[in-house]
Amino acid sequence: MTKLLIDCDPGIDDALALALAAGSPSLEIAGITTVGGNVDLSLTTANALALREFLDLGAVPVVAGSPGALLRHDVRAATVHGSSGLGDAVLPPATRPAEDGHAVDFIIETLRAAPGEITLVAIGPLTNIALAVRKEPRVVEWARDFVIMGGSYTRGNTNPAAEFNMLADPEAAAIVFEAGWTVKMLGLDVTLTALVTTDVLERMRPLGRLSDLVVPAATSYGVVTAEGGPAIHDACAVAYVLDPSLFTCVPAVVRVETAGRYTSGMTVTDFKAADREANALVATSMDVKRFWDVVLDAYTRLASRLG
Amino acid sequence: MTKLLIDCDPGIDDALALALAAGSPSLEIAGITTVGGNVDLSLTTANALALREFLDLGAVPVVAGSPGALLRHDVRAATVHGSSGLGDAVLPPATRPAEDGHAVDFIIETLRAAPGEITLVAIGPLTNIALAVRKEPRVVEWARDFVIMGGSYTRGNTNPAAEFNMLADPEAAAIVFEAGWTVKMLGLDVTLTALVTTDVLERMRPLGRLSDLVVPAATSYGVVTAEGGPAIHDACAVAYVLDPSLFTCVPAVVRVETAGRYTSGMTVTDFKAADREANALVATSMDVKRFWDVVLDAYTRLASRLG
Amino acid sequence: MTKLLIDCDPGIDDALALALAAGSPSLEIAGITTVGGNVDLSLTTANALALREFLDLGAVPVVAGSPGALLRHDVRAATVHGSSGLGDAVLPPATRPAEDGHAVDFIIETLRAAPGEITLVAIGPLTNIALAVRKEPRVVEWARDFVIMGGSYTRGNTNPAAEFNMLADPEAAAIVFEAGWTVKMLGLDVTLTALVTTDVLERMRPLGRLSDLVVPAATSYGVVTAEGGPAIHDACAVAYVLDPSLFTCVPAVVRVETAGRYTSGMTVTDFKAADREANALVATSMDVKRFWDVVLDAYTRLASRLG
Amino acid sequence: MTKLLIDCDPGIDDALALALAAGSPSLEIAGITTVGGNVDLSLTTANALALREFLDLGAVPVVAGSPGALLRHDVRAATVHGSSGLGDAVLPPATRPAEDGHAVDFIIETLRAAPGEITLVAIGPLTNIALAVRKEPRVVEWARDFVIMGGSYTRGNTNPAAEFNMLADPEAAAIVFEAGWTVKMLGLDVTLTALVTTDVLERMRPLGRLSDLVVPAATSYGVVTAEGGPAIHDACAVAYVLDPSLFTCVPAVVRVETAGRYTSGMTVTDFKAADREANALVATSMDVKRFWDVVLDAYTRLASRLG
Repeated sequence: MTKLLIDCDPGIDDALALALAAGSPSLEIAGITTVGGNVDLSLTTANALALREFLDLGAVPVVAGSPGALLRHDVRAATVHGSSGLGDAVLPPATRPAEDGHAVDFIIETLRAAPGEITLVAIGPLTNIALAVRKEPRVVEWARDFVIMGGSYTRGNTNPAAEFNMLADPEAAAIVFEAGWTVKMLGLDVTLTALVTTDVLERMRPLGRLSDLVVPAATSYGVVTAEGGPAIHDACAVAYVLDPSLFTCVPAVVRVETAGRYTSGMTVTDFKAADREANALVATSMDVKRFWDVVLDAYTRLASRLG
Repeated sequence: MTKLLIDCDPGIDDALALALAAGSPSLEIAGITTVGGNVDLSLTTANALALREFLDLGAVPVVAGSPGALLRHDVRAATVHGSSGLGDAVLPPATRPAEDGHAVDFIIETLRAAPGEITLVAIGPLTNIALAVRKEPRVVEWARDFVIMGGSYTRGNTNPAAEFNMLADPEAAAIVFEAGWTVKMLGLDVTLTALVTTDVLERMRPLGRLSDLVVPAATSYGVVTAEGGPAIHDACAVAYVLDPSLFTCVPAVVRVETAGRYTSGMTVTDFKAADREANALVATSMDVKRFWDVVLDAYTRLASRLG
Repeated sequence: MTKLLIDCDPGIDDALALALAAGSPSLEIAGITTVGGNVDLSLTTANALALREFLDLGAVPVVAGSPGALLRHDVRAATVHGSSGLGDAVLPPATRPAEDGHAVDFIIETLRAAPGEITLVAIGPLTNIALAVRKEPRVVEWARDFVIMGGSYTRGNTNPAAEFNMLADPEAAAIVFEAGWTVKMLGLDVTLTALVTTDVLERMRPLGRLSDLVVPAATSYGVVTAEGGPAIHDACAVAYVLDPSLFTCVPAVVRVETAGRYTSGMTVTDFKAADREANALVATSMDVKRFWDVVLDAYTRLASRLG
Repeated sequence: MTKLLIDCDPGIDDALALALAAGSPSLEIAGITTVGGNVDLSLTTANALALREFLDLGAVPVVAGSPGALLRHDVRAATVHGSSGLGDAVLPPATRPAEDGHAVDFIIETLRAAPGEITLVAIGPLTNIALAVRKEPRVVEWARDFVIMGGSYTRGNTNPAAEFNMLADPEAAAIVFEAGWTVKMLGLDVTLTALVTTDVLERMRPLGRLSDLVVPAATSYGVVTAEGGPAIHDACAVAYVLDPSLFTCVPAVVRVETAGRYTSGMTVTDFKAADREANALVATSMDVKRFWDVVLDAYTRLASRLG
């Protein structure tokens, strides 16, 4: 059993990642924290709360965090995630509010209470994580593992150099990558292979109530075809926690550019320097077939619970 | 009666600033928070604690904060402030520890508890303030006023472009200046006129026990002469709270450079743009004679209390 | 018949590129200019002069240009190209000196004298080209075409972000890409597929005197195997002039980063923005088999001339 | 007798500087080169040509140079210098054209022809000088002295950090300051004391034909009062050549910022580092009264020649 603390900005693929965690018996969600990212914090929090109830996560705490980046103006992705942040998926609004307190403190206290036990998974901009690291540097030691969806060692998506989560808060990303742990980086290099195909979509349809979430979510992004379709980036980070063997990972030194005119938020990834001072383990390929089997197994299990 | 929350890194001139606050009947110190700066956080906190007892501040809370800058490697000024951080002044070690908790939370909670009542005075690197602003943006509204010692609209001191407190955490300074309040900036432009002269020093000598702090502190920096000597920068920020009329202040737009090769931490001060969007009130000159009268009055009052 | 003006820093693969031009009856070399790059200008010029005689280029002018980058300290690649700049290839020293004058003026005057007729090919750092553009902006109109070996739309080689020629003078590259023409960019994305295999090497061996140059040159870089081996980057630029259909090219907006901490010299390539304002045509793949046929045909033709 | 080569962008104060040189018997103008700056190159060249005839400079060559900055978009100062570049001064258009060739070559060849004899004076953006230095690094040795109007060790004028000539081409300025010579820097720190007062203006009025130039030029900038008025920056550079004792100068290391968001073009001036590696001699004050005596003596002498 692995305990997860998930920092997220739901976000369509965040929703699909939370569903993956919810349907995985080997995972226990210790908490969900939210950050402004794909859409504004008020929406990412509302979506996290709605997902807590829709996915039947029970008493899992949901705690709101940082509304915007440390230094930069907000970058949002509403054109991708829709004005609600969940694309075409419509969930009943939550009936229970978020827990009191701030995500940064919740992260610190949750990790402090169980050193070495909880894996921190960040699938949005890294603002909360950076603030937690700066407020309490020992979170780096307390975390059992630290996994992100973010970055790329080749090209970006929001612009040619930077992936969205990194571009949204480059300084936070720089803090997090320099914090002293080994960041497990699931970047575009693999997540852009986690594509919803027509075959995958067919396997999502007969999931009862859960299909009301995952089918519109998975198809909101773009056109689904036999060969490809929308990428569900964030689910890769949870899949890595479930089974790292789904991914080929290579040690690297990753520096986050904060000074570039065209390259801020780029995760500059040096594989050659890795023997000296690797600060990241970078996923370079994934077993896409097995990935979808893992995801759909979890969704099927969750669907039978949700009815 | 003005309530002060003082974020500091004692530091010789921080000590002289705290003594000024302690001796001013119109000021009440609501708390002292510490930050890594002139010397390491462990020393700035130890010094703040020692000062709490030496200055007979009673139950004023002292809460430790951030050890280092948001993104940068530490810049220290031990060559100026000595290995202890208090130069040649030697205080008895504190008998009471710091309060639990983190400076960032203490700042937030103290301001939240008394909106519009407490003036925040920052005389070290702005790391704690930046984290507080990012964690709880409403501190900007809750603070009665926000006064810093830091920056310059002409030249720096640590290097030609930047003043020490700004250079030590340029990104924090950028966050703080962009936070939405009007920063009262007491920079080198005035603090380099707050010089300990032989005349001033003579007035410090007959202060009993207090002279054991202020005389060695005031002379640790450099040679005292009739015309000039060491500048006690931080005391200017407290003096501003005591009596703003000591200073001529001009509205300005201040941007903190974070991208320069030679200029990071520079407070780029535009007086012409001020009518549009001033985010600072910048001290451009001070009445040095009256400043010293205010300081020495407070010291005299404090001395009679301390014996 | 296409006339070429080749700006180069020989350099092993520069030598192989010049041999390709020399052996191509449809190309006429109008001049060779040199720049500091792989090795110092004195060596790149000496190598260009030696190649002029070894390749029997007759009266083709060779004119020396800029020793170093516009703003940066020199970046050299002697570990790749050897202390002479030609790896294990040893040529007789030239008997004739370089022509008088400066490469920048030679480029300007040669293009001015035949507007629309001469294709400018740059296979080293872009210092000379940038200076020519700034001194006489009309070279942009006078050039029939402008082709470079340099850059990448994915990863660099000298560091994770930048290709050597761009890293060696990022400001020059920025000037050149912003000059108003459509840069034909043969970057690492294709040149790293132009690999000397054992098969290619066998076809180089029976080339008589020419094999004394091309065999040691082609093998200096690294180990030749059946699948791969050293990449002869610069020859791709000449091959493009010979037959653009060897390459798939895509319009793009290319911006050269000059402000990054880790990314200076990166050719940030935006394919999506290309409809608006493309300033480059970027090679994205090449027909490697046909490339080698073109190269070896030219080498064979040249070999029969050289004996 | 000192020979001057003046690189300029007339520009009102350039005109006043040229008049100062023209009226100084100890100076001989070896040539005038033009650069885009205060106004476009076509205007700065037209103004230089008009001034050559109006000031009766005879056969002094005028050669046009660079239209714009190395990397940046043009910064112009037409609001200061008027649409013609000469403010309210109206000169007869030139009857003779500029000499053929390019300023960069003229600078190189003129200095090469008389090593150690000619003082290079640059009173506009440093584009031409940078290109000359890059094309022929030995100009640094050949120049007898190198004097600029530009920069500041305190604040800028075009923005809070940068003086106009430096802001207009920061990369060129960086090249020039790093070129290996000792730049004599007459910056705003002194030139803002070279103010046209009512007294000065009265002494300019009775200068016959010359007053048609200098009076409207000197008053175009701003309001003349008893205490101050417009600063005639560029004349300070020529005055320095005439008599360095007019200025107090201090050795310094000057670095030109090219990477800052708010500080590009700033001349970051470190006086403390000067013993190690000074690359500049920076004017820190001037004898304003003697300056005006020198200027008005020259103008009077010139006026009697011009009638």
